Amino acid sequence: MGKNDVRTQALTLHRKLKGKVRIESAMPVRNRKELSLVYTPGVGAVSSYVAKHQKEAREYTMKGRMVAVISDGSAVLGLGNIGALGALPVMEGKCALFKEFAGIDAFPIVLNTQDPKEIIEVVCAIAPGFGGINLEDIAAPKCFKVEEEIKRRLDIPVMHDDQHGTAIAVLAGLINASKVVRKDMRSMRIVISGAGAAGTAIAKLLRKHRAGDIVMLDSKGILSKNRIGLSPEKRELTRLTNTRNLSGGLSEALQGADAVIGVSGPGLISGREIQRMGKRPIVFALANPIPEILPEEAVRAGAAVVATGRSDFPNQINNSLVFPGVFRGALDHRVSKITDTMKLKAAKHLAALVKKPTAGRIIPGPFDRGVVQAVARAIR
Amino acid sequence: MGKNDVRTQALTLHRKLKGKVRIESAMPVRNRKELSLVYTPGVGAVSSYVAKHQKEAREYTMKGRMVAVISDGSAVLGLGNIGALGALPVMEGKCALFKEFAGIDAFPIVLNTQDPKEIIEVVCAIAPGFGGINLEDIAAPKCFKVEEEIKRRLDIPVMHDDQHGTAIAVLAGLINASKVVRKDMRSMRIVISGAGAAGTAIAKLLRKHRAGDIVMLDSKGILSKNRIGLSPEKRELTRLTNTRNLSGGLSEALQGADAVIGVSGPGLISGREIQRMGKRPIVFALANPIPEILPEEAVRAGAAVVATGRSDFPNQINNSLVFPGVFRGALDHRVSKITDTMKLKAAKHLAALVKKPTAGRIIPGPFDRGVVQAVARAIR
Repeated sequence: MGKNDVRTQALTLHRKLKGKVRIESAMPVRNRKELSLVYTPGVGAVSSYVAKHQKEAREYTMKGRMVAVISDGSAVLGLGNIGALGALPVMEGKCALFKEFAGIDAFPIVLNTQDPKEIIEVVCAIAPGFGGINLEDIAAPKCFKVEEEIKRRLDIPVMHDDQHGTAIAVLAGLINASKVVRKDMRSMRIVISGAGAAGTAIAKLLRKHRAGDIVMLDSKGILSKNRIGLSPEKRELTRLTNTRNLSGGLSEALQGADAVIGVSGPGLISGREIQRMGKRPIVFALANPIPEILPEEAVRAGAAVVATGRSDFPNQINNSLVFPGVFRGALDHRVSKITDTMKLKAAKHLAALVKKPTAGRIIPGPFDRGVVQAVARAIR
Repeated sequence: MGKNDVRTQALTLHRKLKGKVRIESAMPVRNRKELSLVYTPGVGAVSSYVAKHQKEAREYTMKGRMVAVISDGSAVLGLGNIGALGALPVMEGKCALFKEFAGIDAFPIVLNTQDPKEIIEVVCAIAPGFGGINLEDIAAPKCFKVEEEIKRRLDIPVMHDDQHGTAIAVLAGLINASKVVRKDMRSMRIVISGAGAAGTAIAKLLRKHRAGDIVMLDSKGILSKNRIGLSPEKRELTRLTNTRNLSGGLSEALQGADAVIGVSGPGLISGREIQRMGKRPIVFALANPIPEILPEEAVRAGAAVVATGRSDFPNQINNSLVFPGVFRGALDHRVSKITDTMKLKAAKHLAALVKKPTAGRIIPGPFDRGVVQAVARAIR
């Protein structure tokens, strides 16, 4: 199916469906007796009870089953800041995947504000009815503060999926890719091209996994302690990365590197740059829909393992492998925070689903059996 | 079914259902092709399109079908200020009725704030994905300002149902009750006991219908220009009501009155007070679950027509007759504001469904055919 076919088919399908999320009543209301149980006067007894026993709300309301998928539309897919309504089809799609992959009821909410303080207030205000909050497509660097503050204030799991879903999938892929090239992750040199939401979370999770030397780049080059004008978030990253204090651009960073993880933009890595890397290099070119380098070009330049974010190439590293299981586990085990330990475990469980990793298969596919359950088992 | 039976059964049912609202995916996701249409890359085309053609969002997303049912839990049923989680079972029930009665997708959102300014900000911030906003169980007087300001800011229909749903149902009942007692509403003396959300909206809608002399009471007695310390909202009501400038309590108000509408509290009207009313008096005792006076007592005191808010007595005046049709009409006809003209028409359509009103039947039941359609036809 060509790219234009997918676009046309998707537009036609969406126009037909008029949205991908529907509401069902869990109980029919066909007569006065049923009405009296679902609504007044019966529901009054339930409201009184829940008001007095707030901890039991999950037993009597949707709270134990319902996840909010919330975006301000400031960084949607590769489309950038397209606003609330533009973001809605993606959030609806995510809710459809929550249901289809993990049986989770999820509802999309798109915000008519992009102010971090307002986002925090709004999300905290609407939280009581939900058992979890999936933040989505919020631009860096505000996404860090927004997520952190909402997590601090709420007692339900909160996850900005662009950060942690991606980081978990990347770590899972890298665990298996390092087996394929027979290298120890703890001594690998890893380059991350892109220091936004995904890049930052990947760097932090790789550090927690005690991955070796990490060098990060943003659009202006390598993040180093010497660079002036770095944001506080990027300055923090220089404390976790670049132990050799490199400076320069991608060519300097890739010199002798064992792996490169692209979470930046289309075509930003050339075959010539791959050739500067060490032996049997690993190339994750995750920009969507157009990767940093096309797989065949990366292989021609010597890449031993290649992954992208796309479903039409082998080794799709995509957060749809992760978020359904994370919230399935969080709801089932009534987890109030998604911790780093859980994320590391989720990545390991996901990696372990591939019994014998090969260059062509370092990560399970979204329709493989056991993906949701493997991740969910880690979140407890 | 006794009262305790209903309570016990409702609790058991809710514990079994774990919430009355479920999410459905409008499309299965069983293979890579379906995934590519519902999610990336296909959804990207839809997001781009909707971002560029915002007015067409209703054609491609849930916006054209989805109503938010929002409460701060400050005035829930007869239970008072029981907060967000306490309110959730009622809001879920309302969403179940939206679906079952009118095929409308509605989603409950309960707020962790009761500050009017914050409610306004939060509701406006989450509005983009919705085609309508049903505010619910927000205490007076803040509900007036909250509704007015949200209506002003949004281009989708917004209705605080405790006000307008109730007012429309009361007017419909009163139109038919006046036929039964053969009186002209324009010359009737009408007493409204209760000057909260419902009482205020009823008074305003009856005035728009050019109903005769209206006298209103709050817990301290008749609202009159002479009373000191009245809130701005109640002061405004003294300009619309009490043309004879009465003062005193319910006994003074009911002297010679043709109709009394109780939207106050249990047992607040006595048979002796009904006896002070004029010939063939109309008594609407709408407090829930315990009315201002029980129907048999009102009839013993001479009432010609009696209505309550309960399903176990004849003539149930309840906003469940109204809200499904209002939003059905608003969504179908892409109405951006619910106007007074539409509300008056909705009441007339509802009343007209009862071909030959009698003392025992002045209003249709919630399961009667054509209720939703009759109301919906008025909202255009």
